[in-house]
Amino acid sequence: MSDQQVVRPAPISGFSEWLPEVRRVELHWLDRIRETFERYGFANIETPAVESLDVLTAKGETSQEVYTLRRLQADPKDGSDAKLGLHFDLTVPFARYVAQHFNELDFPFKRYQMQRVWRGERPQEGRFREFTQCDIDVINVDDVPLHFDAEIPRIIHEVLTRLGLPPWSLNINNRKVLQGFYEGLGIEDPIAVIRIADKMDKVGAEGVGELLRQAGLSAEQAGAVLDLARIRGGDAGVVDEIGKLGVESPLLSEGLDELGFVMASLADLPSGSVVADLSIARGLDYYTGTVYEGKFLDWPGYGSICSGGRYENLAGSFIRRKLPGIGLSIGLTRIFAKLLAEGLIETGPKSPTAVLVAIPSQERRGESIATAAALRARGINTEVYHQASNLKKQLKYAEKKGIPFVWFPPFEDGKAHEVKDMATGAQTEADPGTWSA
Amino acid sequence: MSDQQVVRPAPISGFSEWLPEVRRVELHWLDRIRETFERYGFANIETPAVESLDVLTAKGETSQEVYTLRRLQADPKDGSDAKLGLHFDLTVPFARYVAQHFNELDFPFKRYQMQRVWRGERPQEGRFREFTQCDIDVINVDDVPLHFDAEIPRIIHEVLTRLGLPPWSLNINNRKVLQGFYEGLGIEDPIAVIRIADKMDKVGAEGVGELLRQAGLSAEQAGAVLDLARIRGGDAGVVDEIGKLGVESPLLSEGLDELGFVMASLADLPSGSVVADLSIARGLDYYTGTVYEGKFLDWPGYGSICSGGRYENLAGSFIRRKLPGIGLSIGLTRIFAKLLAEGLIETGPKSPTAVLVAIPSQERRGESIATAAALRARGINTEVYHQASNLKKQLKYAEKKGIPFVWFPPFEDGKAHEVKDMATGAQTEADPGTWSA
Repeated sequence: MSDQQVVRPAPISGFSEWLPEVRRVELHWLDRIRETFERYGFANIETPAVESLDVLTAKGETSQEVYTLRRLQADPKDGSDAKLGLHFDLTVPFARYVAQHFNELDFPFKRYQMQRVWRGERPQEGRFREFTQCDIDVINVDDVPLHFDAEIPRIIHEVLTRLGLPPWSLNINNRKVLQGFYEGLGIEDPIAVIRIADKMDKVGAEGVGELLRQAGLSAEQAGAVLDLARIRGGDAGVVDEIGKLGVESPLLSEGLDELGFVMASLADLPSGSVVADLSIARGLDYYTGTVYEGKFLDWPGYGSICSGGRYENLAGSFIRRKLPGIGLSIGLTRIFAKLLAEGLIETGPKSPTAVLVAIPSQERRGESIATAAALRARGINTEVYHQASNLKKQLKYAEKKGIPFVWFPPFEDGKAHEVKDMATGAQTEADPGTWSA
Repeated sequence: MSDQQVVRPAPISGFSEWLPEVRRVELHWLDRIRETFERYGFANIETPAVESLDVLTAKGETSQEVYTLRRLQADPKDGSDAKLGLHFDLTVPFARYVAQHFNELDFPFKRYQMQRVWRGERPQEGRFREFTQCDIDVINVDDVPLHFDAEIPRIIHEVLTRLGLPPWSLNINNRKVLQGFYEGLGIEDPIAVIRIADKMDKVGAEGVGELLRQAGLSAEQAGAVLDLARIRGGDAGVVDEIGKLGVESPLLSEGLDELGFVMASLADLPSGSVVADLSIARGLDYYTGTVYEGKFLDWPGYGSICSGGRYENLAGSFIRRKLPGIGLSIGLTRIFAKLLAEGLIETGPKSPTAVLVAIPSQERRGESIATAAALRARGINTEVYHQASNLKKQLKYAEKKGIPFVWFPPFEDGKAHEVKDMATGAQTEADPGTWSA
């Protein structure tokens, strides 16, 4: 083992990994998310980490962040690998999947997908090069009922609640309301104004006002745009508030009906958790109706913890059918890493073991193995200590790993089994066929 | 939607994905594997998909298959991405992980890891460019007790049994037996002979005999090497059989003690499932004692379904400590894809939903949503139909997706709920607060 042979490993910026006790918490999170998604009848799929570059760049977005693949010792003249890249989200692969398997799927198709994605971005707080997303989407042929605009945020609300996060709100808006309102104001290019309004987080109301006037809006128009963006409320009452601004258009009416339906449907949820927020714009051009964005209340600058919305034609780049959809994506790594950094992830033991069976002596090793088998057969996670060491050493091992019980098979025939509760120190007789924690 | 805009998606060779009903089975497999690993006290970790090339090539093996990463529009002069590659197995990342977090882990460290890996190989039957492996390893400082040589195959036996696979055997050998036997025969380079013996699957006994004579072995030596390779048996009796060949060396004795211990420890497992097979060599140089290889009995040419063994110093490339280990890796994708191709994966419904709650009319939509909430609160996976269509259409949807029960909330106040069993057609009164399938 000379110095030269040792490659000292170092973390790679933007790629995170956790110690076993932290991973254990993350795994429980993933279990709960999956359970909630399935509780609402969503089916799991996974897609390869790799897509063809044609597919990844079909929408033209974030393409500079795509990681392409090349074999280490590939023939430089062989370009076959160069056509492959790692997916940068789960929406594009989902659209490709639906188009590719169109004839084998049943619609409306409700799926969830929990996978890693990769982006070659400059790492910074909340931005990773590899991270896990948990996506839920409904896609249908020709149209998607408004039912789902209300059901999707209800599911995400349940997920975020079950994770026990610090205070957050799931903010809802509707692009038709924005676009219809701007049209009612006589603005010629409402989409350009949506893009400007989306900068509220970055430049504030004053900055947005400035940009709007630069874009040719009158002071009155810009003022009304800002008035709309200030409206925020936990129920369908926001619709009346918007009405009081005195702007009208057919698209605005349609949008207000939709937003009112969604907020009324969610009226039973705890106050402040799901909020209509007219400042939310979600810059992406493919959203056409309801849009969602979740934020931590205590860290408003941290970026969204979930986001999504309704798109008129998700898979249009891949199939000549109209396939609208609606979905939401939870930024699992972004949420988890923030809580970990803030010291808010409470870790438990370093192993899933409930019982460590001690080995009293080499001769009675078989007894320990049989005891462990009996406990495992009853669903109890059980380790046998790996050698007949002195008992102090065996207890020390259980303590280090946070194993809550140590089991002592009899040291001689005819004696009873005993089990020690490591938290209280109490040691009592026990039967491997009936004992429970 | 002009023709030019549509990128028709096609499968990429070597990358597989499944329909929802198939993924559902794969997910159940993964759940069962994880449950069994945890039942024995192994802790989960995950490592990034990406490692530095220094780490990936530290052992020098399979390096030509490594996929390296490059951002799509990276500055050609910026070489930072070129130092990253996708991991090609889970053993190298595990070794790096242990070295990197050495001071924060407790030993013996028992971990499982279930992740995708990538290899830029030519795809063929049983060989994929992206596949999932399920690895279980124990690593310790300075030495790993022989206990684990018997426990690891017991765990894998339990996993493979629970998956309900077509007939297979888990074959065990010990490199010390091979090397010690060859030394006892007076062979000068036993490692070279191990590499030749490893070709038994490919060239048969005659071919191996030929190669041995080319390597300078006498006819008698080559004959003895082949005699040893023919020995196969389900219990510690193989040790006596090997003894009868009349070859002796200190290393052989040590190897026979270990092999005898492992086989005796596993004597309670069903006959033929775990077999000592002296023809197994596992070419990889880092194995030093017990080696494992699982095979389908009906498809002996298909390649191993799991493999592993004991290595004297796993993380030696990354840390100046001696860290021996022992582990086994299940080739999940290889097994699953084979069974799927053979028509042996029995798929169930296309969704996890147990109950579809119908919507009798738009006015009574709230009743349907409340009914679904009551069922979900009791842990029942429940969908509400997405609009107030005619009931035939709603039943048709349940039928298509394989949803076993359709729930009818009352069409008017005061009437009872009813539930229809889609398999039998029976429709009975039910209470959402107490009903179960």
